[in-house]
This record gives sequence, structure tokens and C-alpha cells, in this order.
Amino acid sequence: MKSVSRVVIERVSPLVDGGRFPARRIVGETVTVSADIFTEGQGEVRGYLLYRPETRKSWSRAALSLEGKDRWRGDFAVPATGRYLYTIEAWVSGFLTWRTGYEKKFRYNSNERIDLESGKALLEELLENRPAARLRRRLEAVKAAATLREKSLLILDEGLAHEAALIPDRRSLVRWETEAAVVALRERAGCGAWYEFFPRSAGADGKPGAFRDAEKKLIDIAGLGFDVVYFPPIHPIGRTNRKGRNNSIRASSADPGSPWAIGNESGGHTAVDPALGAIGDFTALVRAAGKLGLEVALDIAFQCSPDHPWVREHPDWFKRRPDGSVQYAENPPKKYEDIYPLDFNTADRKGLWEELKNVFLFWVDKGVRIFRVDNPHTKPFDFWEWCLREVTAAHPDVIFLAEAFTRPAVMRYLAKIGFTQSYTYFTWRTGASEIREYLTELTRSGMRDYFNPNFWPNTPDILPLHLHNAPRQAFIIRLVLAATLSANYGIYGPAFELCVSTPLPGREEYLDSEKFEYKRWEDRAPGNIREVVRRINRIRREHPALRRTMNLEFCESDNDALLAYCKTDRESGDVILCVVNLNPRVTENGFIRFQPEKAGLPDDRPYQALDLITGDRYVWHNDWHYVSIDPFVMPAHILSMGGK
Amino acid sequence: MKSVSRVVIERVSPLVDGGRFPARRIVGETVTVSADIFTEGQGEVRGYLLYRPETRKSWSRAALSLEGKDRWRGDFAVPATGRYLYTIEAWVSGFLTWRTGYEKKFRYNSNERIDLESGKALLEELLENRPAARLRRRLEAVKAAATLREKSLLILDEGLAHEAALIPDRRSLVRWETEAAVVALRERAGCGAWYEFFPRSAGADGKPGAFRDAEKKLIDIAGLGFDVVYFPPIHPIGRTNRKGRNNSIRASSADPGSPWAIGNESGGHTAVDPALGAIGDFTALVRAAGKLGLEVALDIAFQCSPDHPWVREHPDWFKRRPDGSVQYAENPPKKYEDIYPLDFNTADRKGLWEELKNVFLFWVDKGVRIFRVDNPHTKPFDFWEWCLREVTAAHPDVIFLAEAFTRPAVMRYLAKIGFTQSYTYFTWRTGASEIREYLTELTRSGMRDYFNPNFWPNTPDILPLHLHNAPRQAFIIRLVLAATLSANYGIYGPAFELCVSTPLPGREEYLDSEKFEYKRWEDRAPGNIREVVRRINRIRREHPALRRTMNLEFCESDNDALLAYCKTDRESGDVILCVVNLNPRVTENGFIRFQPEKAGLPDDRPYQALDLITGDRYVWHNDWHYVSIDPFVMPAHILSMGGK
Repeated sequence: MKSVSRVVIERVSPLVDGGRFPARRIVGETVTVSADIFTEGQGEVRGYLLYRPETRKSWSRAALSLEGKDRWRGDFAVPATGRYLYTIEAWVSGFLTWRTGYEKKFRYNSNERIDLESGKALLEELLENRPAARLRRRLEAVKAAATLREKSLLILDEGLAHEAALIPDRRSLVRWETEAAVVALRERAGCGAWYEFFPRSAGADGKPGAFRDAEKKLIDIAGLGFDVVYFPPIHPIGRTNRKGRNNSIRASSADPGSPWAIGNESGGHTAVDPALGAIGDFTALVRAAGKLGLEVALDIAFQCSPDHPWVREHPDWFKRRPDGSVQYAENPPKKYEDIYPLDFNTADRKGLWEELKNVFLFWVDKGVRIFRVDNPHTKPFDFWEWCLREVTAAHPDVIFLAEAFTRPAVMRYLAKIGFTQSYTYFTWRTGASEIREYLTELTRSGMRDYFNPNFWPNTPDILPLHLHNAPRQAFIIRLVLAATLSANYGIYGPAFELCVSTPLPGREEYLDSEKFEYKRWEDRAPGNIREVVRRINRIRREHPALRRTMNLEFCESDNDALLAYCKTDRESGDVILCVVNLNPRVTENGFIRFQPEKAGLPDDRPYQALDLITGDRYVWHNDWHYVSIDPFVMPAHILSMGGK
Repeated sequence: MKSVSRVVIERVSPLVDGGRFPARRIVGETVTVSADIFTEGQGEVRGYLLYRPETRKSWSRAALSLEGKDRWRGDFAVPATGRYLYTIEAWVSGFLTWRTGYEKKFRYNSNERIDLESGKALLEELLENRPAARLRRRLEAVKAAATLREKSLLILDEGLAHEAALIPDRRSLVRWETEAAVVALRERAGCGAWYEFFPRSAGADGKPGAFRDAEKKLIDIAGLGFDVVYFPPIHPIGRTNRKGRNNSIRASSADPGSPWAIGNESGGHTAVDPALGAIGDFTALVRAAGKLGLEVALDIAFQCSPDHPWVREHPDWFKRRPDGSVQYAENPPKKYEDIYPLDFNTADRKGLWEELKNVFLFWVDKGVRIFRVDNPHTKPFDFWEWCLREVTAAHPDVIFLAEAFTRPAVMRYLAKIGFTQSYTYFTWRTGASEIREYLTELTRSGMRDYFNPNFWPNTPDILPLHLHNAPRQAFIIRLVLAATLSANYGIYGPAFELCVSTPLPGREEYLDSEKFEYKRWEDRAPGNIREVVRRINRIRREHPALRRTMNLEFCESDNDALLAYCKTDRESGDVILCVVNLNPRVTENGFIRFQPEKAGLPDDRPYQALDLITGDRYVWHNDWHYVSIDPFVMPAHILSMGGK
């Protein structure tokens, strides 16, 4: 007979939109599932976490343990990339419910033989469900014992309770109605330092650079401690309506054009610009990067120059204006006549979508596993959900970074439907309170389960206002913030480490943008911050606390110009405290609060704080600490607490 | 052809557990539905809120309006009690998306005739979907206009945009997958002052009281300004193992027994204790109460004394011990041998459940519309969900108050499955921070949509620690907090207004509890707080801001003993600020913050604060106000801001 006890399973975590989208974790992490599980009255509930890789049919089980009032948890490991499913089963244990009451009676010496009979009957019932030899032997021992006291001690034994708790009570057994998914991503999805550069600017002796020249630059980038080197589009560049310097409408014959105007007579999204070399040169570069410990990321922008082969081969993939001409991109009053958007709504949708998917697969085949996707928010969600699922089903190690600087709801949704990482508003968040607020949203709201931020102080498109004509210290501040607040961060160099700060007048863009011309960078120009970059990247590699994002905790500070935050890696005991002077021009003093006991440090003895940038050691007591930061010396402390 | 633009509808509010349970509102309120609605790129979404009473087939529609970034809202009224359903439809408006771009171009004088053609075509398409005469005329006017400028002005007209926005674009039209429910409750469900008393203590001349005597007491209760008078169980009381004074195991022949030991030879849950009178006397009392503006609430406790007719007529409705005897209630080491719990899991479940439902219907038939349900958390959730749904389907005006003082998850769940109101932890929350925290949870978390609190400073079962041997002021403090923090509150009297404060030693219970004996209360005993009660209830009636709960906002205070909070009723402009000295023994001074502009008061001129308890008037400026409260005079201010 089915019991009328209803076991309720509620508030399950992690869970994105009721299970419509998967939560994200990194391979090697433990997924902790928790849920409110309860029934009426004093009924003792027990349960299992059921989990499996999506490709396997049968569930593995882990007994749930109580972690708070009606709050249960179970853990499972995600040892390999891919999708995992989980659900929960729970029941009211008749025996354990009886045991709670009997144990109380026994304590007050008010237990009776008649009460014991009920307990034995409940055990017999369990043993009918599942013949558990040890439990059977224990029950027989209860029966064989001479006195009520002896019987009671045996039936109340904790080992017996533990064994009985593992057998579901079929009358009340329920399974949660949802099978929730968790996607396990490879380590690089969770942590990486990115360096973006234009290979065409890697040339020597004033000549345009090619892939072969870029190989030398890779050695330098690897030496600075980066993990990912990322190129703007490397495809042939359109000639029709090509843009000149500073985005001018007229290009001279020497102007190389914008790499985002993709395609010419040499090919489109699966070709490389002949000026950069041949495909073979590219794959050689990918291999060379690999040997240096670098991964190559490509920028994929689904749009075409008027000279792209698709314009000729698939005229139906583009929207037409009423006069029959192809609709170019516009953002009134600006016209981008060098760029044709694709019509994702074309009658030949299947053909177009397959071709776009094949662009990713083509580059995967050439050894690329990381894609930065240009403006995904202007293409249909349905396309991305399908395309990313298709690519990652075959290649679960592929990472997609969404270059979407748009409204919050859209950015969140792109993450939900499959983008591994996302650009963020960090680029424009400079004050202490707005940084706290934004990071709290990213790391403490439901977003933490699916939105994986990648922090960029600059990009080829963006020289933010606070870096306009800014001093060297301002660049260090943004570097430290990006590299320590978020485990994924990147810079567009060499403009960044050379502290290039001259804007196009009135715009948040670079003057003489590299997007439209060849650059010759003086890599060692005075005032560069290469040594700081190198040191910060080394600190990130040596400190596991900085290789995660969701472990961020802000600390109190009595001076709003001093932002303090802490990251802890429980496994290794690594604890990092960062204190950043947000004011690049003035020394700031104040008290910040670091609670040693939270970091597992003694709260009754002095402890060490080792500045990982300068090597200075401080001895601190208790919670509140005086800090004075002269930005001209170094605008931040990155302190290893405990001095490791 | 179906567009590939996916319109996403997310984060819909109000919504309880994804739509599994209804949200609650009070008749006459407006339900505001909001949702994130968006699509890729710059697509302009539009939508309708669809709503209907559950009993009607066809949807009514209200156009959604934008209230924030991608956040849309629509309203609907709930003019009568019962269930309403709502859902959302949304689409990408091709015409409005085109219009945004064209409007920009027009502003920059870069619009062309060819662009205009696209807009006209999109309007033609809309008119095919729905022949809208006015829109058709407008389109014809565009066509007839002479110049591009004139055509542009006409097609960009806001009135035209408004009309076009109302026609769904079928290619992208989506309906949210959920039909969410809202239950509209009658006004008393949202606001009421309750007075609990034992009619058997209403006797004159030292004799046990009956319903006829209670009629006199009702006049007094009505005079104190209460809305609901609520009786402990009024049924015949068991004789077997009857409890004596102070819950002693042996009762004398004069002891009346606990009203919760229900049933004897005179009947059970549908009978009245002959000592109280006949059923006719009870219905007369209900009518008399009605004339006084009072509603009668009954306590329904689904448990039986050993003498209850069901024990004889339905022996299978009770659990048996292994020796065949009926299982009595226990909480080891205590045995409640005067009470048999019902076995909701009986083979005759249908018979039992129907009978229990009929208990409610019996009393509904006698004119009762409010039930306080005893210990609902010890009975199956399935039973309650079924029973409450059945009763309210036939009688949507019936109110159920759940007497569950148990774990948070269980209390929330009882509210979700149908209990109109709930007892709360207010009874034990005394400090400023714990009151703030608890009320913030009740009024700012998802609970606000389904959990309707009823605040009780005391009950016949509970004399909380802070009222043990407490002074008169302590009772006033608890009264003011209960009556102003929550729109529903109640006291167990006359013990409360007489400031009875002597506990059973070592317990949070009354000494000489009325549960086990007749009481003769000296209603006018010196030190009573009847006048304060009367005044507070009058203030509640006169001030709509106090007749709602979810409008609570806490105010800053620089003294933790001074709790300040504000309630606003936007419709009437009523603004109430309460400042309570939580310390009954010491005058407390401090600054509290009231922001006049938030209450629609001038922030550049002085404004009045009228103390509704004392009649004193204060003139305040700006935000921060000095307050000094001597609890021996009056431990709280209830201020009408603006002085109305």
C-alpha cells in the first residue's frame, strides 16, 4: 500500500531555470547537490543522489547527508568533460522514525516490549525489500538477546540505523521530477590568461607581419606567462568599400582593411589571408604555440565582405533591399557598406547553418579549441543553441567566448544556451561600490552556476574612458583587478602593456586603431608594464586560490578608494588577499578587515602576510589592518596570507 | 514562414515554484505581472498579458508595457474571490524594429525612399494578419503623401506605432509555456485583528460559561476593535484519561478537561460541548457576533479522545499497537493517553478524508468562515492539499490559519498547498536585528507571494520567555509590533491585555493554564492595557497603510533598541512610521531616518508627524530625527507622516 506521506523535494541546487539549462563545473571539481527534503510531522526522510554521465544508461547512487534543517546534500565527481545528469530519490524511513521515538523512551526508561515489536516488524519489512545479510544478522541478534535492555541496545545501535537508512522504503519512495544536467568543462574554461594580438603587426623591419613572424612573438607572450593567444579574424579581407585608417570611408591601396570584413577572392571563413601565409603556416603556428604551453584562440565573426565567396555562391543567404541590392550593415547614421550580415532566416536555413557549424569544425580540425565569437547577440539564439551543442557534442573540449557587450538578460541567456565564457561589464566598472555590486551578482546570484566571466581591461574596440591619457599606474590597477577578481582575464596587447592611452577624440576607441592599419609596436618602450604582467601571471599560476572565480569574498575597508578582497582554495589552504588602490594618482591610507580565522589562520597569534609582488613580509594581528598604498610605487598588494 | 527569432520569456513574477502553486492576492488588488522578454539583436519585442478567471474559457488581454531594461509588465484586476490564470504572449515586431532604424536615419537625414518601402511592406503584412481600419487609413495616407519627408513623418507617427504594436507578428509569436495561477482571497484574509478566548470562562457568578454568556463578552471584544473572535475547540470533551489542572494526569470530577481532547458520548467534531449549550446557541452566537462586526473563527483539531464516537464507529481509522490497543499520542517520555491520533493512512482513507472534509463543511453550514487548524504539519500534505481545495472550491471565502510552529520548509509548504494564513516565529523574535531579518524574509523573498503571516504575541500554549514576569510595557511593545508589522495579528485574551505573566516553572507556558480549568478573569484589573489595545485597533482601521503587510520598509536607526519602520499606502497617500523602544525598562534615545521624499512629502520644507497614540504633533526637517522614548509613558510612536 502506498503511503500517504508525501516526501517533498524542493529548492534543488545547482539548477538553472528549473533544469531547462545545464549548470557548469570544471573537470575534477565535485558537484554538490543540495535540496530541501521533508515530510509531515516527525517522519525521518532519507535519500539518494542519482547521477550519471549522459552517455551512460544506469545511475550511480550516493546517500544524501543532512547539512542543515531539512537541507540534504550529496556529491558527485565529474572526472571527464561532457554532460552529466542527476536527480534525487527520497523516502520516509518507517524504521528510523520509529527509532527516534524508541530511543527517547529508552533514555527515559519508558520503553516497553510492545514498542520493540513495532521496530522489529519495520526491519522485517525492509529486509523483504532488499535482503541485506548484515542487517538480517543484526535483527536475529536482537531477537536472540535475553533482556529488553539488551534487545534495545542492539536495535538502537548506530551501525544498524546506518544500514537500515540505505534501504528505500518503497511505500513512500519518490523521485524528483527533474533530471538536471551539469556540463563539465575542461580546466582552461575556468581559468586562463589571454593575450590578444594582430599577427599582421608582428612584422620585422617595417614589413607587414605573417604567421611566421608571429611565432617569435609567441615566445615573448609565453614568457609573460599567458595561457591563450588570441587572434582577430585571420581570413582574407574584402576589397569593396574597404575602410581606411581610423575607420575612414576611403582606403588607400596600402591600407590592409579591417579583419572583420571577411572574405575576398582568396576565400572566406575557412581560408587565411594570403598576406599572413598559407593554412600550413597557421597550423605550424598552432603547433609552435602548443610547444610553448600556449593555446591559440580564433575570432569567429559570422558576417561577410561583399567579396566573400558566399555572396556569389549563396546569394539567398543575404537579405535584399527592396531594389534587389544586398542589405549592408548599418547603425544609423553609420553605414557599414564593407559588411553584409547573414540572413539566418533564409529559406536555405539548413544549408547556411550547416556551413557555419562547419566553419568551427574546420578550425577544430586545424587544432583550434578556443573561439571568441563576435557579436553573438545579433544572431538568433536558436542558431547558437543548436550550433554550440553540435560542436561540443563531438568536441567537448571546445571553448566559446561570447563577445557580447549588451543588455544583462541577453548576456545571461547566451551563457545559458551554451557559451562557455562571456565578456562582461568589468571593462567599465571602476568604483569600489560598483565593482563590489557587479562581482557579487556574478559570484553570488544564480549566475554563478552558468555564467563564466572573462575580464578585459581593453579590447581593440574599446579604450575605456578611465584609460584615456591615463598614467601607467592606471593600467596596473586594471590589470591587477582583472587578473585577480576573475580567473579568466585577457588584455589586447601590446597596446595594453605599453599603456597606449590616446583615444579617438570623443570616443571610447583607440586613435589610429590597429583594426585598420599595420602597427609596429616598440615592445620595450619605456614605461611599459611587462614586468608587472609577468609577475601577476606567475602569481596566478602559483596560487590556486586565484585560479577560481566563485571563491571571491570582499573585505571591509574604511576607505572607498581601497578595494580589498580575498580568495581561498580550501584544498591547498592557499589564501590570497588583494588590496587595490583604485586611485592612480594619490597615496591612499586606511584600515581593511581580514579575518584570519576565516582563512584557517590563528586568531590569537600574529600571522604573516607576504606581498607576492614586492616580496615584502608583514606581521599582522587580529582583524583590522592599516594599509597605505602609493600607486607610483605599486598600486596594489597581492598578499599570501600565512606567508606561503 | 516561422521566424528564427526566438522571443525569450523569463523570470516571470509572481510565480511560486515555477507555477506549481498559485500566488495569493486580496480581492480588489491589482496583480502586476512582470517578465524579462527579449530577442537577439535590436529586435523590438511586444506582448500581451493573457488572464482569466479559471472558470472562464477565453482570455482577456492587456498590452505589456516596458518598465526597465527588457523588463515588461502588465496588470489585471481580481474583482472577486477565486482562482485566476495568466500567461504571456510576445513577438518581435518587424515594423517597430524597422521603425527604430528608420527613425534614426530620418533624424540624421539619411533616410531613403527605398528604406521606406520596407516599412510599408511590413505594415501591409500586419494588416493581412488583422484588418485594422485605422491603421489601414494611416498606411493609405503614407502612400498618398507627396514627398519623402511627408511620408516619413506619417509613417513615424507615434499613434501609428502604437496601433501597429497591438498586432502580433505571427512569425515570431510565442506563448509562455506556463499558465500560472493567482488565488484572490477576501479582504479578511489579508487583514484582521483576532481575539482568542475560551467561552467556558465567560461565566458569571463563578459558574462555568456557556455560549449565552459569551455573547456579552463579544460586545466587549467588538468595543476593543477586534475583527475576529476565535474559540478553542467547542466540542464535547473526553472523559477517559482526562487531564487535570496544569496538565496533571489525574483530573478531579470538577475539572473540565482540555478542549483538544475531542469527543465523548455527546458527539465529536460536529457536536458542541453540552456545557456550552446546544448547536442553536452556537449559531445564535455567530449571528450575534456578525451584528457586532465580528467574525467567529473555530479551532479544528483532527484528533480524538478515547470516547469520541469515531473510535467506536470506525476503529480502523486509528493505529493499533502490536497488542491491538489503540495507539495514543506521545512525545517521549510524555504520553497523551487522552488523545488518539487519526491514521490518515487507513485502508478506509476515502471514508476518513471525506468525513474530515465534512467537519469543515458542517461548520461552514453553521455560519463559520474562518478555521484555525491545529498542528496541520503532523497530518499528510496530500490530505490538506485535497481538503482545502475541496472546501474553497465550494466556499472561496473560507480562511484557514495553519497553527504550525515547525521548521521553515514545512511552514512554507503548508502555505503553498492552501493554508490562507500561518502562525509565525514572531512570537520569539525580540531583538531589532532578528525582527528585521525575519520580516525581510517574509516580505521581500519569494514567500511574499504565498505566505500570509498572522502575528501572535501569546497563545494558550505559549507564554514566551520575554513575557515571563514582564512589566506592562513589555506587553504593549509586543502588541504594537504584532499589530503594525503584520496586517493580521491576534492575542489570546484576557490573559494578554491583563498582562498575565506567570509561567509554569521552567516552561514557556502559563501557570494554571486555561486549557485545563475554568477561569474567572477580572477584565478591568488594574494595570490592564485595554485602552492601548482599543487605540491600536482604531489606528489600524483608520489607516490603510497598516492594513497591508508586504508594504513594510525598515528605517535606519543608530540605536539598536529603537526599531523603526514605515508603511505606505500609495492609493490613499497614507504613510505610517512606527518607532518602538524594544527595551521595556529604560528610556532609549537615538536618531532614526525617515526619508520624506519616499513618502511623497516635501524634502525641502518642514513636515508634520502626528503621533496617533498620544495625539502629539512634531515638526520634522529632512531625514534624520531625534527620538526619545520612555517606555513607562508609552513604548512606541505610531506616527502619521504628513499629519493626517
